[in-house]
Amino acid sequence: MSESAQISVWKHTNNCISFEEDCVVVEEPLQISLRYGPKGQRTRRNLAMTMRTPGADILLVTGYLFTEQIIQSRFDIAQIKHISENEILVDLREDLKVSLNNQDRAGIISSSCGICGRTTIGELKATIPYILKNSPELYSISEICSWPEKLRKAQRIFQSTGGVHAAALIMETQMIYVTEDIGRHNALDKLIGYAVRELVVPLDKCAAIMSSRSSFELVQKALMAGIPLLATIGAPSSLAIELAHENNLTLIGFLKENHFNVYSGPERIQTSAARSF
Amino acid sequence: MSESAQISVWKHTNNCISFEEDCVVVEEPLQISLRYGPKGQRTRRNLAMTMRTPGADILLVTGYLFTEQIIQSRFDIAQIKHISENEILVDLREDLKVSLNNQDRAGIISSSCGICGRTTIGELKATIPYILKNSPELYSISEICSWPEKLRKAQRIFQSTGGVHAAALIMETQMIYVTEDIGRHNALDKLIGYAVRELVVPLDKCAAIMSSRSSFELVQKALMAGIPLLATIGAPSSLAIELAHENNLTLIGFLKENHFNVYSGPERIQTSAARSF
Repeated sequence: MSESAQISVWKHTNNCISFEEDCVVVEEPLQISLRYGPKGQRTRRNLAMTMRTPGADILLVTGYLFTEQIIQSRFDIAQIKHISENEILVDLREDLKVSLNNQDRAGIISSSCGICGRTTIGELKATIPYILKNSPELYSISEICSWPEKLRKAQRIFQSTGGVHAAALIMETQMIYVTEDIGRHNALDKLIGYAVRELVVPLDKCAAIMSSRSSFELVQKALMAGIPLLATIGAPSSLAIELAHENNLTLIGFLKENHFNVYSGPERIQTSAARSF
Repeated sequence: MSESAQISVWKHTNNCISFEEDCVVVEEPLQISLRYGPKGQRTRRNLAMTMRTPGADILLVTGYLFTEQIIQSRFDIAQIKHISENEILVDLREDLKVSLNNQDRAGIISSSCGICGRTTIGELKATIPYILKNSPELYSISEICSWPEKLRKAQRIFQSTGGVHAAALIMETQMIYVTEDIGRHNALDKLIGYAVRELVVPLDKCAAIMSSRSSFELVQKALMAGIPLLATIGAPSSLAIELAHENNLTLIGFLKENHFNVYSGPERIQTSAARSF
């Protein structure tokens, strides 16, 4: 299934009208179904549905199950496969303790935004499995300022459609993986899904950079994967900052080639070459 | 409760570091609780939770209940009030038929994205209550091109925080209402909630303009309120275009002062002054 689609569009530019072929990002629902429980007593249920850009569904579902704390590692998944274009069936290993109803979640978890299925404020904060260690001077200012251009160059679907978010994983000076999706939560889940499959979680040596704004849910997902630094091109929300502070995560916003703001955890940034005033 | 918050930020610009006070958009969870059923047998349940920017909660909840088809008009609400800063209790009128469990929704609806609570693809499309009439030449090109600047000027919270979406309702040449929220679904729900409270639904003479991209859910919400034209500053998704086509909604994307694309329903745009090539 394709990540972008050709459509006909009626374009108005400077008082001229033309009809052209153009490219838009594909948005399709993905249904996630789970099968779990001991042999002979397997239970199957629809777990969630998310609107996503097709193309990396296995990563998306793996990351989603991980950030939702349904799996702790890729080995908790016995099999994961498409049963149709827009449906994935995950077989969890037989001895995995799955307590969907005991997670204080309202019946069935829905969408990948990290909020859905929770109906009370107390349920909002997930239990963060990793405590972020102090990692002083993890990245230099010039390195951080190089990320927006690196990300832009890697945004393959964005270049043709102009309508998709991206997330990238940085290790030392390398952008080791990039994901794109119409939903920013999905883009980050795909990135974390990649890390879970590559067995490199917790990502305590990495930074994540995203094309979007940062919200509570994105900070929570980064924390679930042990990522110590999250940088976004857009603005952060008050709750994103609060959660970053509480958990010692470095949160960067408004990242541009010659500018960024640090809302939490500036000690991870090497400042020796910069002037303070 | 405030829409924006003061925070301290560590700013890096052109290799200089400064510590400054800055403004960020507030993101807080809002819990929506419902009380319904006949006298003596009232049921209360947590309906949904959404991350929102405070300040127009009554409009948000009214619009949400309307676009989710739980209410058909403001008169279905007997009382709506805050029971704490982040919780709203809605008393529905005693004789209103509320069938939350019969809506094929998974237990409890969560978040306001229009997807949550639905776990199968078949449940995705809501029943659109209005059929959009053909309304040729509803808006002129020059009028449409004037909207981005009007919207920008009206984005009060965005001006101080840079991190919030806006939705506006246009009637003839007037921008009659503007809403802002950290979530684009919420911004549109607030706008529709305003219309429901003002008893002007269906909005068949209006256009909605949004600062965001357009997705399936936004087109669906616009259709629920009978809005014939949705224009967004950002890109549309494939499914947004498909749903707009199917329901005769005019969908505009990449709206700028001298340019826009029309993905569906161009007949609502007056083109007499434009040249075709």
